[in-house]
Amino acid sequence: MRTLKLILAYDGGAYSGWQRQPQADRPTVQRVVEDAVGAITGVAGPVYASGRTDAGVHALGQVAHLHTESAIPAGSLLRALNATLPADVAVFALDEVDGEFHARFGARRKTYFYQCHVGPERHPLWRRYALHLRHWPDLERIRQAAGLLVGRHDFRSFVTDSAERDDTVRGLAALRVIRTAHGFRIFATADGFLRHMVRSLSGLLLKVGQGQEELSRVPAILAARDRCEAPAALPPHGLFLWKVDY
Amino acid sequence: MRTLKLILAYDGGAYSGWQRQPQADRPTVQRVVEDAVGAITGVAGPVYASGRTDAGVHALGQVAHLHTESAIPAGSLLRALNATLPADVAVFALDEVDGEFHARFGARRKTYFYQCHVGPERHPLWRRYALHLRHWPDLERIRQAAGLLVGRHDFRSFVTDSAERDDTVRGLAALRVIRTAHGFRIFATADGFLRHMVRSLSGLLLKVGQGQEELSRVPAILAARDRCEAPAALPPHGLFLWKVDY
Repeated sequence: MRTLKLILAYDGGAYSGWQRQPQADRPTVQRVVEDAVGAITGVAGPVYASGRTDAGVHALGQVAHLHTESAIPAGSLLRALNATLPADVAVFALDEVDGEFHARFGARRKTYFYQCHVGPERHPLWRRYALHLRHWPDLERIRQAAGLLVGRHDFRSFVTDSAERDDTVRGLAALRVIRTAHGFRIFATADGFLRHMVRSLSGLLLKVGQGQEELSRVPAILAARDRCEAPAALPPHGLFLWKVDY
Repeated sequence: MRTLKLILAYDGGAYSGWQRQPQADRPTVQRVVEDAVGAITGVAGPVYASGRTDAGVHALGQVAHLHTESAIPAGSLLRALNATLPADVAVFALDEVDGEFHARFGARRKTYFYQCHVGPERHPLWRRYALHLRHWPDLERIRQAAGLLVGRHDFRSFVTDSAERDDTVRGLAALRVIRTAHGFRIFATADGFLRHMVRSLSGLLLKVGQGQEELSRVPAILAARDRCEAPAALPPHGLFLWKVDY
């Protein structure tokens, strides 16, 4: 039995997220990847990702693994997968790894970025990949707010769908704002992320940058451990799973 | 009667090109712009572009004009149009101009670019906006070939659908290759372009860069004035109308 590690990129726009769901209105990325592997190797088995991405969220460096009895060389399988998968999903790398490798349990850190396009008018080509802002927020204030959120905290204020018993403590290693040619990206690196956490953190940072939330309120929102204290999560189409470290 | 000049951007993927067509299978950009103007001003009239773009071709700086009796200020009309137009079409600028202005007849030069993405695997996010090449072509050879095509020539070898009587002489002012982060763009500037001309010229340049066509054949292909001598046109999804000068 071989264990294969895959690096995947996908445009999440047409998918109900990564995870296979019995009654999703749209397909899931996991399903199309598992189906492609099954069609090529003759055996359909599970493909495990580093974590689920939500409906509409993109990935440039999702990591997954699978077990197979197939003897197809890694390079040939990579080519066959990219010839079989739909155009909005691609495998960037495929390598044989130690049988101990587990995409989810072995992940040490993940990095997402949330992408914003700033311009007086919306841009037809970025409509699927960035949140449009008509005016520049104050990036320096965003950086100050980000500095107040980095660290090991209970992020319950930024989580959707968490039961009271869930452990919502995470180590947020970095939260950075990088300017791009036509906007900016908020990069978040942590040992793990909770549901809607990046989009909720980005939503708060944006409110601070737009002067709609006081910088001094940030520690109070974090300490409240109450979803109702934090601003709404930003929409999924600006979010990218960028890389996973092992 | 006011004359308004518009700068338009669109994702051409869902359209049968710019020009209104009675029996197109997909809508045209002209139709959705004219319909939006009609819905806002109450009067549906023609919107004239600098030229038609073909099915699937994008624009970042298409220029158009229209006449209207509406008194709506330019800024308000711009906002109303962007609120009314579908997400894949946007107006970047709208200004009142002299009644003599004509988007098509006044155009002195146009610039298109053809975008290529180079990488071992196809990229899900660029699938609609760039031709994917697995290997780098020789950009220096492409530049040499481009130098042989610049100037005032009969470009009949690079034209689809031209009747024998059509004037196929154009002044190609520049043909440049610019590297991008993940590939390159071929920029073409001329006093006018013929049908499929940029995509045909780019197709030849690519063949030369890939070593599938000799550099020395380029002048002969140009001189032949025969479509069959030149390589096929590249697909539309890599082509962008970038700007129009008046």
